Amino acid sequence: MEAKGYAAGEAGGKLSPYNFERRELGEKDVLIDIKYCGICHSDIHQVNNDWGGASYPMVPGHEIVGIVRNVGSGVKKFKQGDRVGVGCMVDSCGQCGPCKSGLQQYCENGATFTYSSKDKVSGGVTYGGYSDKIVVVEDFVLKVSEKLDFAATAPLLCAGITTYSPLKHWNVKAGQTVGVAGLGGLGHMAVKLAKSMGANVVVMTTSEKKKDEAKRLGADKVIISKNIEEMKKNRMSMDLIIDTIPAPHDMNLYISLLKIDGSIVLVGLPEKESQHVISAGSLINGRRSISGSNIGGIEETQEMLDYCDKHNIVSDIELIPMSKVNEAYVRTVNSDVKYRFVIDMSTL
Amino acid sequence: MEAKGYAAGEAGGKLSPYNFERRELGEKDVLIDIKYCGICHSDIHQVNNDWGGASYPMVPGHEIVGIVRNVGSGVKKFKQGDRVGVGCMVDSCGQCGPCKSGLQQYCENGATFTYSSKDKVSGGVTYGGYSDKIVVVEDFVLKVSEKLDFAATAPLLCAGITTYSPLKHWNVKAGQTVGVAGLGGLGHMAVKLAKSMGANVVVMTTSEKKKDEAKRLGADKVIISKNIEEMKKNRMSMDLIIDTIPAPHDMNLYISLLKIDGSIVLVGLPEKESQHVISAGSLINGRRSISGSNIGGIEETQEMLDYCDKHNIVSDIELIPMSKVNEAYVRTVNSDVKYRFVIDMSTL
Repeated sequence: MEAKGYAAGEAGGKLSPYNFERRELGEKDVLIDIKYCGICHSDIHQVNNDWGGASYPMVPGHEIVGIVRNVGSGVKKFKQGDRVGVGCMVDSCGQCGPCKSGLQQYCENGATFTYSSKDKVSGGVTYGGYSDKIVVVEDFVLKVSEKLDFAATAPLLCAGITTYSPLKHWNVKAGQTVGVAGLGGLGHMAVKLAKSMGANVVVMTTSEKKKDEAKRLGADKVIISKNIEEMKKNRMSMDLIIDTIPAPHDMNLYISLLKIDGSIVLVGLPEKESQHVISAGSLINGRRSISGSNIGGIEETQEMLDYCDKHNIVSDIELIPMSKVNEAYVRTVNSDVKYRFVIDMSTL
Repeated sequence: MEAKGYAAGEAGGKLSPYNFERRELGEKDVLIDIKYCGICHSDIHQVNNDWGGASYPMVPGHEIVGIVRNVGSGVKKFKQGDRVGVGCMVDSCGQCGPCKSGLQQYCENGATFTYSSKDKVSGGVTYGGYSDKIVVVEDFVLKVSEKLDFAATAPLLCAGITTYSPLKHWNVKAGQTVGVAGLGGLGHMAVKLAKSMGANVVVMTTSEKKKDEAKRLGADKVIISKNIEEMKKNRMSMDLIIDTIPAPHDMNLYISLLKIDGSIVLVGLPEKESQHVISAGSLINGRRSISGSNIGGIEETQEMLDYCDKHNIVSDIELIPMSKVNEAYVRTVNSDVKYRFVIDMSTL
């Protein structure tokens, strides 16, 4: 079926209007009228082909919320009019170990990502959420709160799950101290989520200006990370650090903030495959770990959406019309957004 | 009381005979006639002051086994004639969180190490196991098997616990695949211990010559780590890697061997505080971790000794007289030992 959206025609190209074909509704498919789509930093990396393997024309967007317009004959969980969401994945093999344990993001045969990925059903390429509609297999469609601000729930589909998943996997409990390194789209969600789990939340930011902001979002304490003395004063104070900083930084200094058995978890994949430098001693001293975490599985994404519904958690957003997407990209790169741009698809 | 041993007089100095004073037997002390002491690579690093903070004259040695000669009036667990061992620590604060959870090696106030450390009781410096006797508080003395080869149990006190502790902490189970990177003193113990826990053990070594040796020790498979193709063929195959390589190596290549949620654990502190270079993507892809682990706590060291007693595990050793200690240091640096030198203290 015909769809319209905004696409980049080449690596680093500006986004502009683009008409394309979506696959027809299959038996297990859900057709969604997209209402809002968040702008994730990954979209910019992908448009620029920073990670390689990008396919053009590219319609980005994987923080999608919308309303079900139609469902295939075999669809059981959704009906016309439901509020739904689609995140970073639209399919996976479903057969491998990771898929069977609900870790579709680590599918051994490669998950189908929401855009610039090979569509297993149509054989074509996937197109993302900067678009009026999308067709997705039922299993990768998520139920979205009927009560929360609809536009502000869109970023939960990527920024939300990317921070929720490690907080749950590393088992954050009330009373623990969770550090959040970097206060952008991911960081501000990590603060809200960790706080809601009862943690004592410490934000590390380079920017003195963000101090009040961090507290407003729920942080109990803010450390200016450029101040080495301040960092050193906080050594061995944190159980877990969610590290959202999208560039190389002094990892040994951050590791020194961890308690015994603490972990620092990288969640932001930077522009280039940047390398972190770590001394063995930092880790050996205190049995500490550095780990990585990639979004979350489908079941866990639903769990996160339900959790946010229950705890009234959404993203702080700046709603923009489609025409401002290129400007928003520049501002995102300059960290000039609190904290996520969301495109109002009615302006398409 | 008077003691004799071998000491290095200065950083990098040769070891030579040295007479010194041990503290008198206190109420909670155990006086041990040292029978055997292993040569750990750490001894060489410390003699050379590779890690800084060394104190001279230095009597090294922290893989000590011997016979109790006398006990203080308040000692309950040991009596004259018992076979005992002393490892890397002889005291700790006993009051901090880590000490109270049996993690004396991470004591917040600094554990007292067996040599070149400040002795809290005497106020002087600690002297290690290249010596005829030692006085140690009861809580840091360990019971040693009456049935296993006595000399070959000495290396369990450091090489044994250093590899046992991470295998237990990371919860190795029968049927899992454990990689062992490097086949020296630590590596050969990791192979024996992981095998005894029912793991499928894969040794990674640069040396083609070590292939048969690794299999003799219990390895199920050997990968020549210089062979990048062979390494790549084994990607995502291991649950845990015990990394004993005492020098920088291609960490991303090793991380790629890990399954989802796998960890590579550094246990060897290299010569200089060498830095490892890691790409965020290696960790994010598969929620993998790089961690460190430092020896083990006192209770866990006793558990390991009891485990080795039950499973008939000792170190492969080359027994030498005290006079050959300097030669043994050179050979240890050249990896020319299978797999641990142990000094026969009757030759002192």
